[in-house]
Formats: sequence, structure tokens, C-alpha cells
Amino acid sequence: MSASTHPDDMLISAADEVKIRQRLIRVALGHEPADTKLRVGKLLDVHTRMWLADQEIIMVGRRIAYVGPAGTYPGKVNREIHEPDLLAVPGFGEVHKHIESSHVTPEWEAALVLPHGNTWTCEASHEFSNINGPRNLEFWFKARLAGSPQKIFPLPGSAVPPTAYEWGGGHFGYDEQRGFMADHLMVAGLDEVMDWPAVWDPKNPSYDRLWGMIEATFEKRGVVEGHAAGIRDIPTINAFAAAGLASDHEAWTAEEVLDKVRRGLFMELRPHSLPEMVEGLLEAGLNDWSQFALTTDDRSCSDTLKLGATDHNVRLAIKAGLAPEIAIQMVTINPARHMRLTPWVGSLSPGRFADIVLLDDLSSLSIAKVWADGELVAAEGTYLKAVPTIDWPDWATQSVNITRPIAAADFAIAADPGRETMKAALLRPFHWDDDFITMELPVADGQVQRDSDRNVTKFAIVDRFSGDGKTSAMFWLGTGPRTPDTALACSMGHDKHNIWVVGSSDAAMAQAVNTLRDTQGGWALVREGTLVATVRYEVGGLMTCRPPEELDSEMQHLYAQGETIDWMYEPTFSPRWFPGFPERLAFATLTCAPWRWVLVAPSERAPEGFVNVATGETHPIVW
Amino acid sequence: MSASTHPDDMLISAADEVKIRQRLIRVALGHEPADTKLRVGKLLDVHTRMWLADQEIIMVGRRIAYVGPAGTYPGKVNREIHEPDLLAVPGFGEVHKHIESSHVTPEWEAALVLPHGNTWTCEASHEFSNINGPRNLEFWFKARLAGSPQKIFPLPGSAVPPTAYEWGGGHFGYDEQRGFMADHLMVAGLDEVMDWPAVWDPKNPSYDRLWGMIEATFEKRGVVEGHAAGIRDIPTINAFAAAGLASDHEAWTAEEVLDKVRRGLFMELRPHSLPEMVEGLLEAGLNDWSQFALTTDDRSCSDTLKLGATDHNVRLAIKAGLAPEIAIQMVTINPARHMRLTPWVGSLSPGRFADIVLLDDLSSLSIAKVWADGELVAAEGTYLKAVPTIDWPDWATQSVNITRPIAAADFAIAADPGRETMKAALLRPFHWDDDFITMELPVADGQVQRDSDRNVTKFAIVDRFSGDGKTSAMFWLGTGPRTPDTALACSMGHDKHNIWVVGSSDAAMAQAVNTLRDTQGGWALVREGTLVATVRYEVGGLMTCRPPEELDSEMQHLYAQGETIDWMYEPTFSPRWFPGFPERLAFATLTCAPWRWVLVAPSERAPEGFVNVATGETHPIVW
Repeated sequence: MSASTHPDDMLISAADEVKIRQRLIRVALGHEPADTKLRVGKLLDVHTRMWLADQEIIMVGRRIAYVGPAGTYPGKVNREIHEPDLLAVPGFGEVHKHIESSHVTPEWEAALVLPHGNTWTCEASHEFSNINGPRNLEFWFKARLAGSPQKIFPLPGSAVPPTAYEWGGGHFGYDEQRGFMADHLMVAGLDEVMDWPAVWDPKNPSYDRLWGMIEATFEKRGVVEGHAAGIRDIPTINAFAAAGLASDHEAWTAEEVLDKVRRGLFMELRPHSLPEMVEGLLEAGLNDWSQFALTTDDRSCSDTLKLGATDHNVRLAIKAGLAPEIAIQMVTINPARHMRLTPWVGSLSPGRFADIVLLDDLSSLSIAKVWADGELVAAEGTYLKAVPTIDWPDWATQSVNITRPIAAADFAIAADPGRETMKAALLRPFHWDDDFITMELPVADGQVQRDSDRNVTKFAIVDRFSGDGKTSAMFWLGTGPRTPDTALACSMGHDKHNIWVVGSSDAAMAQAVNTLRDTQGGWALVREGTLVATVRYEVGGLMTCRPPEELDSEMQHLYAQGETIDWMYEPTFSPRWFPGFPERLAFATLTCAPWRWVLVAPSERAPEGFVNVATGETHPIVW
Repeated sequence: MSASTHPDDMLISAADEVKIRQRLIRVALGHEPADTKLRVGKLLDVHTRMWLADQEIIMVGRRIAYVGPAGTYPGKVNREIHEPDLLAVPGFGEVHKHIESSHVTPEWEAALVLPHGNTWTCEASHEFSNINGPRNLEFWFKARLAGSPQKIFPLPGSAVPPTAYEWGGGHFGYDEQRGFMADHLMVAGLDEVMDWPAVWDPKNPSYDRLWGMIEATFEKRGVVEGHAAGIRDIPTINAFAAAGLASDHEAWTAEEVLDKVRRGLFMELRPHSLPEMVEGLLEAGLNDWSQFALTTDDRSCSDTLKLGATDHNVRLAIKAGLAPEIAIQMVTINPARHMRLTPWVGSLSPGRFADIVLLDDLSSLSIAKVWADGELVAAEGTYLKAVPTIDWPDWATQSVNITRPIAAADFAIAADPGRETMKAALLRPFHWDDDFITMELPVADGQVQRDSDRNVTKFAIVDRFSGDGKTSAMFWLGTGPRTPDTALACSMGHDKHNIWVVGSSDAAMAQAVNTLRDTQGGWALVREGTLVATVRYEVGGLMTCRPPEELDSEMQHLYAQGETIDWMYEPTFSPRWFPGFPERLAFATLTCAPWRWVLVAPSERAPEGFVNVATGETHPIVW
């Protein structure tokens, strides 16, 4: 049989599986030659958590055909490689990651994380889904189809739109999710259900849309991923699990983890407080970790360059006292089982993709080499393959649709005639209180004014979908520049990803937003009336298709310019909010639980954009 | 909301899940009253393998809405029950069981096994599938729809027909499996793929049919169950796993188990050699049992009455040294994960069916009470519910279709003219050799004769599907009656379930088969020309819809009559073959791997019925 008759084995499909597996059988039995024999010093069987000495892994195409003691394979192989000093463990998987938060496109994500052992990722796709829902799967499959060895399993975003008060870019319900799951076996389920009020409360306007997506996912035997941020009381944890939401990645303490895992949630632990969680769980006597994974969620490529990828998470867990083998199970077999992907990833077993991490030291998780798709793809931290050049189409690169210049007047907040002060509703980053803040603010020139002395500045959302640049503006506390005529704008504003802008003058805000209109997304920093830094996210306004190092150098320039600015600060929810350059404002625009009052682009249900997403209540921003 | 607006929650469907879970949320939050609070002394969280003291389980409808420390549920409950001295563990599940082998219909199976804690079963449905394929799912759902609290998850049989040399009753391929999985969320996957030669060998005439079923199962995100009997060499185990067959339940030794689990197979351990396997695995240092389940496969109701159900398997594992908590995980969360059924069964968590086993002693697994569907259904080994009366339709009860009386002449084996002896091909029970046995047998009256002195008797298969009673007969060694004019016939002959008959005279064989023609299936024993015992399997010729005790008393009568007969014996594959009443001939008609030469009803590819199922070769039965 000639090679050309074999499926290319890039995207998983049932019909291809038949042909691929029929060939693997012939190779395993020695009836047909294999491509490669990789003989290793030791191999971790993650099913039994046992090490096996001197094993050979036989590969053909992109898959493993055979695993056994060295010298037992009965067939011929075209090449043999011996790594007597290395330990083989399965390629690592991310059970919940927004690749968009790396800010590089999937072909560059592969180059970034494969040297760190991360060979497969369940893509939590609601960022790009919110930019261009109809093209979402096409977007995530493009790099793989162009030859990228990373396996991306996209889960369509439940948060499209994030709440019923947002709009534009995509709208997913029962029909869409049913179609995604019917069309593509790589779609493992439904991405994190975040809008808890829309799940529990029949009066919430997103109730039917969300339950439609859940229904379609059940119907197609997919996994419904959860997001239980701020859900800590036992009744709500029970309600969350009863809803069929299968996981959580938002726990912060060992106690919260135990309360959730005991209600059946699959716990995906993020690095944020991982050492404390692992230590606490070990202290509590936990010795069965099969319901746990380690995961990243959001990490910029700059941070990945500094810290590592999934391997960083594993190292943190080991340092906190977890057995290395258990920590490895938490990024291999455990997430593969949870996501129902065991036929393809999660173990060094026949039929699975030939994705192998070779360690030269276990306790430090020192990665010597990484194989993917049956080839060596990284050594000593360096990616060895060419990154495919993808000519990203307009539907990906033309995502900031604002057909008019934004003006300072777009951010003006008018005062009632004759008033010297007005009451204003304020938010601050990570404002999770039931009520908003109120302050009496000065009026000048017929407009309500910022109050730098009290840490009050102006924050706005500019819609980037309708073409009209519909704008909502209000006052925020404890963030933004105190430096005059200064503004920071970004086209990444979770999860709807309209443009947010914070500034000490309306003119500077307009200038920053207009810059993003020109660059089609990224960051823009205006200092004292001058544009001093931009970062380009030319794909979806969220990612670049340039090397991570190039993006990082733009970010470093932005940070350096950011340091020349006087940023307001007051502590809010630790550790989510830090002094200095307010990068995390991109997450302070979230609207999912546990958020209450938020600012969104003007919408039918929130004409001024100021709305309590838990109740649907609106309120004037000044009165 | 009135009770009548809730789904009945008998069969799982995605649309019903939405309504059920929306209600569970309201109950968990205390917005709507719950039905029942069951407070228990201790509760086993199978996710962490940790015991929790003094917990309350809140139930509504058939589900769990809430689990937490006693006194924490915020809502109202209609009744409260306190079991301070009992330990709650999840309802047990069978990951691979042929309920047909209990020989009672599903409503009686429920009454039989629920007192033993078995609340859910993955039905390995190829027995009834082979009788009436098109009605298979309808058959398995009938008891549940009539109110039975046992959850049966049918897996359509891959062995329909078992091999390409068999026919009648049902024919499942891609289209059928695709339809089953699309129509019913309770269909978890594809039942044990047994015909290994049809999987690995493209020339096997069942190759396309089987791969079609595998493809449809992958397409619908189902589980492909395996059956790797006799597969012990490392290359074939690798090939088997590479094929995508996810499990095996046919291992006999710890070494075989390790060889298989290390290639990624989910190991379902049967009781046969369980103590040796568990001891061997513990000695080998296994301490992660997440890739293991305990299962039954086949067990008659007579044996269940004597030994127990799944609880027997758990007790055997505990006695062999396994921690009780791990043994319980092996019949709860582990099989639920493997079968992708965690939203419904496998743990005491919100959203799952309220199926609870209450133990009064852990180490002896002493079961005090069993709850299912939110009700107490068994106490001290007694089933407390009424067994629904099901009027099984003709398609279930009229399954022995032979429109003419069978005659002694149907079993005659003609000799060539003028021969005093002829060479004969012989089999014996569990004949797994590559070659059949040959003997020179005497000729008399123009027919080749039995030879009682050399343990040679006649064995035949009579088709029960076509109406014509097509018959294959040949000589078998070491089984059947030596007593004259004696014959034993049965309509259960795995897996095609034609009638098999063994006898010391052709007339007695005909009499036994004609009895089954009259009774529509079961057993018939003719001794010295007189019918001395019958057992009625009036449903599908495999089961009765009468109480297990009634069936057992018929079986005991059959065994007692069987003891008055002189049975031939020679040891074959231990422990599958025993001296005395040859009950296990019902399994000696198997045709799946590792069988080679078998006798089947006459078929296009095997006109005399004698065929090597591994190669397709046929051979005359005498020459």
C-alpha cells in the first residue's frame, strides 16, 4: 500500500480512524514495516503509574503502533533511535486553555509550547468565537491542516455572547453546537459554562440559549465544561454539579477544591494558588488524584517564555510535594479521560498519536526532547520544525470594524443643566459587590468630570462589530493613568472583546482607540497626547501571527513606556489586581459569574451599557 | 410546577436532561422542596476515595440534588430518614454483563440483583441481538419503561452475527449502529468486539461489517468494548489496542492483565481467577486501579442466588487483599468513567440517579439496604418493589421458528458406499487448536457411528431462524451422554443461539429438539427415550419472565435428572470444562476468537457447518 493511500491524519474523523487503525494493526503484527523505533531507558505507563525499563515505541504515520520491551517488536522499522538515558512520558495536554491569551496564532502556539511538552490542548474557544463565531472551528483547524504537530481540540464557547447584554461576532445556541459536534469529532464538548445566573435563573435572558447548548452537547455525548468562579457555598456547588457542568478550574483553596470534587466536579487546578492547594490536599489525606488535572487557562506568550507552559504547572505541583508520576497523570491520562479523548491522547499506547516527552530528570521535570506525530519536534527547549506560513484571511484579520473616527465627544458624560456636581455610579476592577459605588463628582463645561485626587478616571467600551463604534463610558475607581492626556486602549477585553479604553482625557482616549482602528487590534498607549507604544494583535484583535519573541519585544516596549506613567491604584480582589501598568483590565471587563455590575457596549437590554449581569438591572451612570 | 410536568426520567434523553437538571438546581438551592433527605453515618466519595462523616443526601424525582454535611441543606424536604449506623456507597454497576445469561428478563434481573446493590448495568446485548436484532433496544428498555428501577445501558452486539459463517435473527453494521447511537443516549457504545480475525484480517468476510460498526461508534463518541480472549502475545495485544478496542474482560493472570493494561486497555476483571489476579497485581506493586473494573460477564440466576451479584465480585477482591474502597471504585466511578456515564451513575453526587448502597459492615461488604431512583428498593437481601408484569410480545416469545418436526434422519451422517470405517473430523468442547481431531469411526447401516468406548458422540446444531430447521451434525469427543437413547438440547448456544443437541441416539436428539420447538426454548433432557426434564426460556429462548426462584427450581430438577446420566468426560481447557452435566456446552458453541474449528448451522460459506472461523477453511466431517 503506498503512503498516498493513507489518510493525512491531521484532523480526527471516524472514517479516517478506520483506515489508520487498520494499518496500525498490520504494523503492530509486523505485517507491514514501521517508520520508527524509539527505544527509551524507561517509560511511564500512566494507566498503572508504573515505570517500565528499556522499552521500544514503534511508530507509523503520526501514531504509536506498538509499545513493548526492547527487542520484542516482530516487524521491520525504517529507522531506529536509542535514548538509553531518557525517560519517556506521554505528551502533555491542556484540559482548559485559551490559546488566544497566548496572543499568538495556533501555528506559533505550537512552536511556543511543544518544546515544553504540550502536544495537545483543549481550546477554550470563546475568545475567537466572540470575534467570529461562524469561522471558529475553521480558525482552530487551520494550523493543523497546514502541518502543525499540535493537536487542538476546540470546545465551542458557551459564552458567545458572554451575557444577554452583549452582542456581535457570534451567537451560539442549540443549533450551532449541534452542528459543531456533528461535523467534527475533534470538538470534545462545550467550553466553560460561565454565566451561572443564566443557568440557574429561568428569568435570565440567556437561559434558553445556554440550555440549548448544554442539550446539544449531551445529545452528542460531549463534555460540558464548567467555570465556578466565586461559587463556594455548598448549596450552589451542588446546584452547579446538578446542572451537569462537569468541571471547575476556578478554585483557590484546598477547602474549596474538596467541596467541589466531592460533588463530582473534575477539578482543573491552575497555577495561581497551586502550591497551597496541593499542600492542603495532601494534608487532608487525598491519595486518589484521578479526578484532577493541572491547567493554564490564560497565559501570555511573554509569561510562557519566562515560566514555561504545562511543564511549569507540573513543576509547581512537584515542588509542592506531589509525586512526579501523579503530577504527570494530571496532564496526561486524567484530562484525556475527562475529555473522552483516550483513543488519541493521554498515554503511550497503541493507537494514540506518537507524542512523547523525553525527560533527562524526573524530579525537576527536565525536558530533553519532545516528539509529536512520530517525529522529533523539539530538543533542549528549541522547536525544530518550520512554522507553517498561514495567509490568514480577511475574516480573521479584519476584525475591528469601526467605520468612523472616534472623537473625544464620544466619551463625554453630560451633566444635567445647572448642576455643579452630580452623583455618579462607579466600578473598579474586579468589582464583585452586589452594589456599585457612588460618588459626587464635579461638573465643568456641562460635563461630569474625573477626579484624579480621589483616584477616579474614565473607562469606556467601544463596540468593534457594528461599524458604528457605539460607545459606553463611565467613571472607574483605582485604575488608569493619573498622568494628563494619557490613555490605554486594547481590543482584548474578555470575553466579548470590544475595545476598552481608560484615560485621563477624552481626547487621549479617542486617539488610542483610533490607533487600534488603524492597526486592527492590539494595544495602544498614548502619553501626554503622543502615541508611545503599540502592540499588534492583527488576528482577531487578540493574536499575532508573528513569532512570540517579536510579540514579546513589543510587549516589553509597552511595559517600559507604561512605567513612565503614573497609574492610579487601590487594592481590590487579591491577587487579581496589582499596582502599575493595568494589564489585567483586559480581564476586568469580564461579565460572567461572579461579576454583578459591569460596563458593556450599548445594547438593547442596557442602552447606557451599565448593567447588573446577575439581575438584569440597569442604572444611570450619573444622576 | 406540578409533578406531572416533570419528565418521567426513565430513559435518558438530552431534552429531558435539561428539564430534570433545571429542577435539580432549584431543589439544590432550596427554591423548591425536595422529596427525601437520607442522612447517613458515613459516605464514600469515590472521586477522592475518602469517607465523609454524617452526610445528608437530598433527592428529588429519581435523582440526587444535594450532598453535604448533615444539616446544611437550605430547603424543605417532604420526608427525612436517618441511618446513623450505615455507610453509603454508590449503586454498583456492571461494566460488561449479559443479562441473558441470568436467564431472566430485565424486570426480574432487577429484582434479582438490586438487593445485591447492582443498580446499573452495561448490557452486552449480543445474545438477544442475535435473536431479534431490530427489536434489541426495544427489548432492553421495556422493563425500565414499565417502572423497573435498574438502569440498563445496552451496547449493541458487534457479534451479530458472531461470524460471517452464521446468520439469522439480526445483522448489525454501520447503518444499524449509527441509528442506535443517534436515537438513544443510553446506548453507550459497541459491545465486545470478539471476532478478532475479522478485525485484523482484511480478507475475513466480516471485516467491513465490523469496521462499519466501529466507525459508527467512533462517530457518535461511543466506547468500543473489546474481548481479547486468548490474546496474550505482545504484538497481538498491541494490535488489539491499536484497533481502538478499548477494553478486555478475558484476562486470566496478573501477567496477562499487566501486559494488556499497559497497552491502554481498560481491564474488566471477572471473578473466575480474580483472587490470583488481584494478589498478583498487588505483588507487582500496582497502586493505581483507575483503569480497572470488576465485572460478571455471564452468571446464571441460580449462581446469583447462591453467590451474589456484583457484590460477590467486590467481596472476592477484598478477600484477595484489595482495599474495600478501591474495590468499590472498581464497580462505581471507574466503570462509569470508562463508559462515559459519569453524569448519571458511579458516584453519590448531584445530578446522578439516587442509587445508594447502605452497608452495615465494610470489610465484609454487608449490604443492609439499597436505594434506587430515590426510593428504598431492597432491605436485608429482599427486593421490596412489585416486579412489573410485562406482556412480552410475540417478537420476544416466538423465537424458535422450526416449521417441521425434526427427525432422527436429520442427524444421520452417511458413509461412502462399501466403507467399513470412515475418517471423521472431531471437535471437543473448548477446542482451540489450529487443527481438528481425526479418528477412524465405524460404519453400520450406511452411516458413520458414534464410538462410546472412545468417548465419541454426536453433536448437532439446528437452525431456529429460517423455519426449515437446517441441521449440521458431526462427532464430538469427551462430552455428551454415554447412557443410551439419551440427549440434551438447548436453545442457548453462544452467540448465535441456534439449538444445539448432543445425544447417544439420533432419535433422542430429535425428541429433545422437538421439545424445544414446542416450548419455544430452554433446555430439554431425554433419558433412555423419555423426556425427563425441561427448563423454559420462553423469552428469546434465552430467558424466562418468571421469578428466578421458579427458574432455579426447574434448573435444579434438570441437574438432578442430569445426575442420573452417565456423561462422557475428558479434560480440556481448565477451568472452563468440568465433568458431569455438560451445562457449559452452551459456551462451547462460541465462534469468536480464540476459536478455530467450529460447528455452525449450514451456511453459504460453510454448507456442512464445519468451518475454521479464523481462516474460513471448511472440511468434510467424514471422508
